Amino acid sequence: IAKEVAKLLEMKAQLGGEEGKHKFVLKTPKGTRDYSPKQMAIRERVFTAIINCFKRHGAEVIDTPVFELKETLTGKYGEDSKLIYDLKDQGGELLSLRYDLTVPFARYLAMNKITNIKRYHIAKVYRRDNPAMTRGRYREFYQCDFDIAGQFDPMIPDAECLKIVHEILSDLQLGDFLIKVNDRRILDGMFAVCGVPDSKFRTICSSVDKLDKVPWEEVKNEMVGEKGLSPEAADRIGEYVQLHGGLDLIEQLLQDPKLSQNKLAKEGLGDMKLLFEYLTLFGITGKISFDLSLARGLDYYTGVIYEAVLLQQQNDHVEDPVSVGSVAGGGRYDGLVGMFDPKGRKVPCVGVSIGIERIFSILEQRVEASEEKIRTTETQVLVASAQKKLLEERLKLISELWDAGIKAEILYKKNPKLLNQLQYCEETGIPLVAIVGEQELKDGVVKLRDVATREEVNIRRENLIEEIRMRTSQL
Amino acid sequence: IAKEVAKLLEMKAQLGGEEGKHKFVLKTPKGTRDYSPKQMAIRERVFTAIINCFKRHGAEVIDTPVFELKETLTGKYGEDSKLIYDLKDQGGELLSLRYDLTVPFARYLAMNKITNIKRYHIAKVYRRDNPAMTRGRYREFYQCDFDIAGQFDPMIPDAECLKIVHEILSDLQLGDFLIKVNDRRILDGMFAVCGVPDSKFRTICSSVDKLDKVPWEEVKNEMVGEKGLSPEAADRIGEYVQLHGGLDLIEQLLQDPKLSQNKLAKEGLGDMKLLFEYLTLFGITGKISFDLSLARGLDYYTGVIYEAVLLQQQNDHVEDPVSVGSVAGGGRYDGLVGMFDPKGRKVPCVGVSIGIERIFSILEQRVEASEEKIRTTETQVLVASAQKKLLEERLKLISELWDAGIKAEILYKKNPKLLNQLQYCEETGIPLVAIVGEQELKDGVVKLRDVATREEVNIRRENLIEEIRMRTSQL
Repeated sequence: IAKEVAKLLEMKAQLGGEEGKHKFVLKTPKGTRDYSPKQMAIRERVFTAIINCFKRHGAEVIDTPVFELKETLTGKYGEDSKLIYDLKDQGGELLSLRYDLTVPFARYLAMNKITNIKRYHIAKVYRRDNPAMTRGRYREFYQCDFDIAGQFDPMIPDAECLKIVHEILSDLQLGDFLIKVNDRRILDGMFAVCGVPDSKFRTICSSVDKLDKVPWEEVKNEMVGEKGLSPEAADRIGEYVQLHGGLDLIEQLLQDPKLSQNKLAKEGLGDMKLLFEYLTLFGITGKISFDLSLARGLDYYTGVIYEAVLLQQQNDHVEDPVSVGSVAGGGRYDGLVGMFDPKGRKVPCVGVSIGIERIFSILEQRVEASEEKIRTTETQVLVASAQKKLLEERLKLISELWDAGIKAEILYKKNPKLLNQLQYCEETGIPLVAIVGEQELKDGVVKLRDVATREEVNIRRENLIEEIRMRTSQL
Repeated sequence: IAKEVAKLLEMKAQLGGEEGKHKFVLKTPKGTRDYSPKQMAIRERVFTAIINCFKRHGAEVIDTPVFELKETLTGKYGEDSKLIYDLKDQGGELLSLRYDLTVPFARYLAMNKITNIKRYHIAKVYRRDNPAMTRGRYREFYQCDFDIAGQFDPMIPDAECLKIVHEILSDLQLGDFLIKVNDRRILDGMFAVCGVPDSKFRTICSSVDKLDKVPWEEVKNEMVGEKGLSPEAADRIGEYVQLHGGLDLIEQLLQDPKLSQNKLAKEGLGDMKLLFEYLTLFGITGKISFDLSLARGLDYYTGVIYEAVLLQQQNDHVEDPVSVGSVAGGGRYDGLVGMFDPKGRKVPCVGVSIGIERIFSILEQRVEASEEKIRTTETQVLVASAQKKLLEERLKLISELWDAGIKAEILYKKNPKLLNQLQYCEETGIPLVAIVGEQELKDGVVKLRDVATREEVNIRRENLIEEIRMRTSQL
């Protein structure tokens, strides 16, 4: 009966007209989420590792607005353009939320006539995709981008981008990973020698891009059925895209009777060889695979492309391991800035984007599993009182501590119980309690308690700040 | 002639049909801007000061999505609701960009049934207002919010919020400032005893809120002409709103024959007295003014309200001082969370929002005026070569440095000139150069050059990392 009543009440609430004040759904928009203090603590760890790496490589930092003129984003994302969020036309300019940080970066370079910069940018981007939140796929998500713009000698900046991916994924200890590398020019050359008409390069490239998710047969069906490619051409592509390896494969393809005749492919293979030489000097070829099936969906790439995938869950005691895909990707886009320049002046660029959300999912799950206690504040000391009527004294003392730069809290009660104050420290991990009492006030001291050991010692008021600093300096 | 040709070409470009590829305007949306690396460096300084203060007071941190369900924002902002950015209806939920961080915070509390939290949130908010960018008024701007939610003893959290404003504005050295304080209950009581009908409280409150920008006569005209208040009631309000002071004024109003008869006003004045007692213990009453003209526009305030203004430009050698208004504001909003709770359960809240953009405008202008050189990277050492054909050696060395956590750069050229490499250090403020040359390679050393003093010394390769760490540890 209770159940039925509840149901009826719910139905009534749903039917209730204007007077049903609270009938709206209490939620965040589809594909988005809040970050709790605990999640923020994990997020900060990831950001710190990434920012440290970007700074280690000498990058500056910029920021751009969350929305751009709609036309700034038009024609940059190929088939993915349908996923762009538009703002409502409320009079004035037509605006869209940024879809990535690369196009705003190119717009920034063209607008400010910058021909040479190494910068990072960490910000949220927006895609009206089908969210799969347990696997870290959201409609609002962070990208952490590092890009090098400028006319430089071949493959030196490109190699540095791969070194950065290697450093970050190693530093975050996400388990084994692999960085797949390819080149748009090798892909285009391959398409040409396989008999794909020029006009179909981009769309066939989009099909190849799906190979990490669906089997070859399905991709072939799409190429032949939907996109009108001849089955023979598709089969020829099928042979190439199963190839992956290192310097040996590059050498082999440079000898390939068909590919070696194609100018684009030859250029791409030559640069790939140079890239692998630099990666050898960096000592990271062990985790790099030259992979002809890697295509990357976005339209704007013109040279080297890469994508990092996690190979397996390192953490064995996670019961339901999240299946994560790519955690970083990028490549060279030498034409994008020119699309914004009134005179079409090009600025060669290469960059990498770290996908935080998937990494964050893994780390969050790992913290859950390990039952590691994460502090969400940095408070060093709670100012407490042993008796009633000491609020004024607590306020005076905490004010002194704040002014000296000590991280301190009080309970917002006039007469809190000492036990409650101590419990608050246990729960939140505050290491010290500064207790004021009537006797202590008379003696000019404060009782300083170590929460972990429960040891208490009287400290002269004038030495308290120094003592707290000393005791918490390892934090 | 050249000018005319340019004009004609521009006109042609504007007229040019579909083939005019680059006819779009290269800009950020109205009321928004990019941040350059130099601006980011200044922004980071401000954020660091603010975050340090919030952490000093024991706050956790949360994050929420940039957009909310449209209905989440409905009915929260009174007359300002027209400034909300809506997203286009592309199928699915109706969404709006957040207008502040307070409503999302209240939604977060209700959704997660949190009754007790102290948190900060630093993020961008969006208002379709008339931008005045030189004065730091943008359509996309940062808010830095600190709020305390929970059922506590009166005015203790409220006093801490004011202490925080005082700490941050002192720390940022923005010159003299004043924090105006009032209470919505005192305002409502005052309206009642002046003869304002209940139904007009909110709209008359909006009029009073304009007093910091327009003279009393104009505000009175709006009250009487537009809002239909009697001239006598308006005049009575006019007498009250010119009052400002400290504890003495509070005592005087507690004796005021009309106000003291009003229950709301009496409650508000009692709490105001308590607040000033706590602020006296914090030693900050010197910069606090109880000001009956302070109203604050937003609908959701229920108790104490406050706003900090800068009194003048401290920096005399700025030629064209920016005129800045309020740099922080906030108050108590005890009913907002209840608006989201299905059962209307209230969670009392008080908070403060620091307006970064105006502060940032002032600091940016000050940096410009002082010609202070701001580094935009943290690079410790440039890996350079003295002769040609040493790219491989440079890559090997820099890889070692990166792996040891040293912040290092190279020029992306196969054979850069030593002079160019040294100039790059001068321009970007890199303090050290590690030079590899043929002789040094043979001897197993690297030449370490101090950019400022031009002193060079050979360091054994195995000691290089330690030497760089030692020399740059003060950075």
